[in-house]
Amino acid sequence: MANWTEIDQQVKTWIMEAGDSIRESFKHSLSIHTKSNPNDLVTNIDEETERFFISNIRKAYPGHSILGEEGQGDDLTSLKGIVWMIDPIDGTMNFVHQQRHFAISIGIYENGVGRLGYVYDVAHDELYYAERGNGAYMNGVRLPSLTEVRLEKALVAVNATWLVKNKYFDEKKLVDLAIRARGTRSYGSAAIELAYVASGRLDCYLSMRLSPWDFAAGKILVEEVGGIMTNLAGEELDLLKTNSIFAGAPVLHGQILNDFLVRK
Amino acid sequence: MANWTEIDQQVKTWIMEAGDSIRESFKHSLSIHTKSNPNDLVTNIDEETERFFISNIRKAYPGHSILGEEGQGDDLTSLKGIVWMIDPIDGTMNFVHQQRHFAISIGIYENGVGRLGYVYDVAHDELYYAERGNGAYMNGVRLPSLTEVRLEKALVAVNATWLVKNKYFDEKKLVDLAIRARGTRSYGSAAIELAYVASGRLDCYLSMRLSPWDFAAGKILVEEVGGIMTNLAGEELDLLKTNSIFAGAPVLHGQILNDFLVRK
Repeated sequence: MANWTEIDQQVKTWIMEAGDSIRESFKHSLSIHTKSNPNDLVTNIDEETERFFISNIRKAYPGHSILGEEGQGDDLTSLKGIVWMIDPIDGTMNFVHQQRHFAISIGIYENGVGRLGYVYDVAHDELYYAERGNGAYMNGVRLPSLTEVRLEKALVAVNATWLVKNKYFDEKKLVDLAIRARGTRSYGSAAIELAYVASGRLDCYLSMRLSPWDFAAGKILVEEVGGIMTNLAGEELDLLKTNSIFAGAPVLHGQILNDFLVRK
Repeated sequence: MANWTEIDQQVKTWIMEAGDSIRESFKHSLSIHTKSNPNDLVTNIDEETERFFISNIRKAYPGHSILGEEGQGDDLTSLKGIVWMIDPIDGTMNFVHQQRHFAISIGIYENGVGRLGYVYDVAHDELYYAERGNGAYMNGVRLPSLTEVRLEKALVAVNATWLVKNKYFDEKKLVDLAIRARGTRSYGSAAIELAYVASGRLDCYLSMRLSPWDFAAGKILVEEVGGIMTNLAGEELDLLKTNSIFAGAPVLHGQILNDFLVRK
């Protein structure tokens, strides 16, 4: 059986080491090349950071599997055993443009069940983490269970571009939701936005398309404080595929699903 | 003649004092009451902070005028003389929900010309300031002049709700712009978003409606690094009225105006 306490301490050490190294890299210039499209930047730091985690995991936990954004992980068709889902730099565009508002995101699952989740906001030195059944924390301070607010009092995170006609979702439903909410925000890092939901800074978060490594850690954080995370149809997430994402406190989540997202 | 160096040092002292006091207040609960609508929160801290600045300014500079959000300032019909434009807490909704992403914003104008501008991101302890003709700084580090990027490489700050049908602006123009940009962001504080434009973290910022105290400091910052700030029609801003706002580097600003905002 896995020793979760030991793994937890190990991951935190690696995350802090990677964070130091990323902050150090800001003193040098970044070499950037584009992946499939200009919105999808990859930097050398991104790849180096993934390599750092993967080589450490393979050495320390040779029996575990790894799903990672930069293609150095495994090609998984099942969630059996222990699977690490890693985004070394979630919010690459922010990383390049702002040197802030990006995060290291690591979710560790056992047979599909989230055990340990970490979102490290590197620039602000804020580590959000959760161990299933043992609470969620930000820099050692326990995060309280989510409190419910009405939509009229809710801050909703959704990117402006999802309110524009797109091939993934009927944007009119989101437009109506945005009008009714108290306010909308967009930070450009799913991991940070999910950590903000878990810490009550945002009341809910919606996205049309995220890969498992984008939301794997956030899901564990959100669920550990009593939140719900599904796709935009209210269905369970598939951790081996791209999903739409909708996270929030249970009553608000249900109300928005019912009144906006799955209404006829 | 005004001693701008002395005023600058005085303002910074007041801002740091107010910042300490706001951070201290997070340890206590906030008593909040709503102004005209639920999106427009006012907190006791907001009012106290404005009172702090106004009483200090009246004592130190009895000949100056003050425009402020919380109604304790002057009722001005002209920009003659020296006018302070103060938003004690810009981003009140963030302040209440997040205890971050809000700023003290102070712009000082002489006969309508911006002299000194300050945006203090209290939670992150980042002071952006500019003195006309003497450069813009963030925590003492000089901000370089803005570099031009093409829209396809630009991060554009615009609130999702402006991409929805509204009475202020033809939202279709903004929708087309959002689709073409590399990405959109929304932080919920005009002062911080303008400081981000001035420091190159955002490439441009658009808003449908801001009061003078929301953008007075940001305008000085943006202009001091070579940026342009107008309304969405490309016209000069009126510092005594509500304006739409559009800020960015000159070439990008001109291109967006021409291709999206004022196109027929």
